[in-house]
Amino acid sequence: VGVRLGAEVTSLDLDNNQVALASDETMAYDRLVIATGTEARQPDIPGQDLQGVFQLRNLDDAVRIRSFLEKNGGRRAVIIGAGFIALEMAEGFSLRDMAVTILYRGDLPVRPFGPVIGQQIKDHLAEKGVDFMSRTKPTAIEQTAGGLAVKTDQGVFEADVVLTALGVRPNTALAEAAGLELGAAGAIRVDEFGKTSRPGVYAVGDCATSRHRVSKLETWLPLGDVANRQGRVAGENAAAGDVRRFPGVVGAQCFKVFDLQVAKAGLDEAAAAQSGFEPMAVQIKGLSRAGSYPGAQPLWIEMCADKRSGKLLGARGVGAEGVVERINIVATALFAGLTVRDVGWLDLAYAPPFGGSWSQIQIAAQKLEGKLG
Amino acid sequence: VGVRLGAEVTSLDLDNNQVALASDETMAYDRLVIATGTEARQPDIPGQDLQGVFQLRNLDDAVRIRSFLEKNGGRRAVIIGAGFIALEMAEGFSLRDMAVTILYRGDLPVRPFGPVIGQQIKDHLAEKGVDFMSRTKPTAIEQTAGGLAVKTDQGVFEADVVLTALGVRPNTALAEAAGLELGAAGAIRVDEFGKTSRPGVYAVGDCATSRHRVSKLETWLPLGDVANRQGRVAGENAAAGDVRRFPGVVGAQCFKVFDLQVAKAGLDEAAAAQSGFEPMAVQIKGLSRAGSYPGAQPLWIEMCADKRSGKLLGARGVGAEGVVERINIVATALFAGLTVRDVGWLDLAYAPPFGGSWSQIQIAAQKLEGKLG
Repeated sequence: VGVRLGAEVTSLDLDNNQVALASDETMAYDRLVIATGTEARQPDIPGQDLQGVFQLRNLDDAVRIRSFLEKNGGRRAVIIGAGFIALEMAEGFSLRDMAVTILYRGDLPVRPFGPVIGQQIKDHLAEKGVDFMSRTKPTAIEQTAGGLAVKTDQGVFEADVVLTALGVRPNTALAEAAGLELGAAGAIRVDEFGKTSRPGVYAVGDCATSRHRVSKLETWLPLGDVANRQGRVAGENAAAGDVRRFPGVVGAQCFKVFDLQVAKAGLDEAAAAQSGFEPMAVQIKGLSRAGSYPGAQPLWIEMCADKRSGKLLGARGVGAEGVVERINIVATALFAGLTVRDVGWLDLAYAPPFGGSWSQIQIAAQKLEGKLG
Repeated sequence: VGVRLGAEVTSLDLDNNQVALASDETMAYDRLVIATGTEARQPDIPGQDLQGVFQLRNLDDAVRIRSFLEKNGGRRAVIIGAGFIALEMAEGFSLRDMAVTILYRGDLPVRPFGPVIGQQIKDHLAEKGVDFMSRTKPTAIEQTAGGLAVKTDQGVFEADVVLTALGVRPNTALAEAAGLELGAAGAIRVDEFGKTSRPGVYAVGDCATSRHRVSKLETWLPLGDVANRQGRVAGENAAAGDVRRFPGVVGAQCFKVFDLQVAKAGLDEAAAAQSGFEPMAVQIKGLSRAGSYPGAQPLWIEMCADKRSGKLLGARGVGAEGVVERINIVATALFAGLTVRDVGWLDLAYAPPFGGSWSQIQIAAQKLEGKLG
C-alpha cells in the first residue's frame, strides 16, 4: 500500500478513472474508495477565526486545544452546542479545573436521546458545576482585553477558550462535483457492498450512507465503529470483487459524561412512527445491581416496540453503571430482529453485583408484551 | 394466595391430587407446582455437624454464618470446594479481614469456566491473600482447643469457621417417591410448559430440568434467574392452562470474585463436541476500554463456534470490567441462533470508555469466521 501524505485531491474524473491532485499530478485507479468523512457545522456568527476558538473534529484539533491551554493557561471554557462531543469536552475542560459554560439554543442536551435522558444529564452537569445555558443563541465571538467574549441573546459569556460543537455533515464536495448520487442527510449513497452510483467507486465511513436494519431505510450514522466496519467491507470488496455485504446498522451508540453512561440503539417512538411502525414505549426505573448488593445505582431505560408485530424497535438508557451492558443486549436483539416476546425471556448472565435476576431489558420487554394484547 | 409457613410436605399422592403434611393433614390440589430447589452436596468426611461448620444454601445460612462470626469473632476461614459460591465466600470472609484458605481436590477453581479463567482467578486469589490449596483432599473436621482443624492429605488447616461448598444436587426426594420422571442430572423432567410426567403437576427452578437452546438437549442449570423465569412460566400455566412456553436457556452465568468479573454463555468445545457439533475456538486478549482511554484493564475472551454451520456456540471471559457486558451480547446472540458471520458484524454501542471500536466479541467471531474456510 502506497500512502501519499499531504496529497490534496482537487477533483475526481470518474469517466477516466483518474484523481487530480493539488500538485497538478493525476493518479489513475482501478478501484476508488472515498473516505472523506465529515466537516464540522459552523455557527453562523462572526469571530470563529479568533485565537482560542476551536472545533473538535480529529486528533489534530484535540492536540491544538491542549497546546493552547498549556501555553495560555485558560480557566474559562465556553462550549457552543450540546451534543455528546460538547458534553465530553465539558467533562474534559472540567477535569482541567476550568469553569465550563455550555450555550445551547434548545432546552436539553443530546436531543436524539430524548427529554428524560436530557434532563438527567442537565441535572448531572449542574452537580458537576457546569453551567448549562438553554435557549441561548450566540450572536458573535469577540476578542477582549482579558480573552474572548461570546455575545448571546441572553448576555455576554467571557472565556479563555471557545469550542463550537454543532455537529457534523458529510464531506461530499468531491463526490458531488464528480456527479455521485447522494442519499440520506446528503451523504454519498452506497449499496450493501459499499459501492456508489458509479462502478468501481466505493465510499465508506462518515461521508457515506448505511442501511438501518430496523427501519429498513437508508440512514446516515457518522460513528467511528460504523466507519470501521464499512471500511473493512469496502476494502475487501474493492480488492476482491464484492465478496462481503455490509449487514447494516441498528443505530447503537453510547457516551460517558462525568459519572453517567448514556446509550441507545434502534428507533425511538418518533423515528419508529416515521418508519411506518405503530410504536409503543415503556419506561423503567431500576438499579444497576441487585438491591441487596452494595453500591447499586439508579438506572433508567426506555424501550420501544411495534404494536402490530411485537418487534423490538429500540431502547435508550442512562445511569452511573450497567447502561452500555443493557443497551448492547438490545443492539444484539435488534440486529437479530427479535420480538419483545423473545427479549422478555432472554437467558442473560446474572449475578447480584451486575443487576437483578430480571434485567431491566427483560422487564421492559415483558411490559411491552403485556401491551400487545 | 394462602401461604402456610412451616408446613413440611411428607409425600405427594398424585393419583388422588393430595399432598400429605408432617402435621398429618392432607391438602387437595387442582394444580401442583414443585419448587423444592437443591440440597448441598456434603463432603464424605466426619465433623460436619460441629459448631462453626457451615454450608451456604440460602439467606438463613448466610445469617447464621454472620451471627456466628459476630459472636465468636473468627479470624480464620477454611473453605472446602472451589466453585463460584466458594469464591464469593472467600471474598466475603476476606472483606471481614479473615485469613482465608480454599481446599480443592482439583487443580484450578471453577472448572466449568476452563483452565485459563481458572488460572487467572487462582492468581488473583493469591494477590488478594487467599491461600488456594489445590490437590488437597479433606479427610475430617475436628474440634480443637483453639477452634476447628480440617485434616487433609496435605496436612492440617486450622480454622474458626469452615464452609463446605461442594455444589448442589436437585432436591427430588418427594418427586421421586411419587414416581415423577427424572431427567438431566437427576432433576425433575419438565416440558416447555413446566409440566412433569404427570398431568396437573409442574416443577420449576433448581429441582427441574430445562431445555438448552444451543445443544437442544435437556439440561440442569440451578441458577436464580432461570428459576425465576421457570416459576413465572409454570405459574401462568398452572393458573391459566398452558399459555406460555419456557423458551429455554443458553447457559448464561456470571460472578464476581474480588476485582474480577467472570462470565460465560453457551457451550465450550468439550460440551459442544458432546452435543454433536464440530467445535472450534479462539481466544482473544484485549482491553476493557479503548487503549487510548485511561484505566483500560486486560480482558480475556474465548469463543466457540460450529465449523460446519458457522453457528455461534458459546463464549466465556474474565477481566476487571466489561466482561458481563460482552458475554451478554453473546447470550443474546445465542438465544437468537446467530452465526459468527452475524456476530462479527453486529452494530454495538461503542465509546472509548467502554471498549474499542471493535468489541472483542466481534473480533473473536471474525477470527472464527476466517476459520470456516
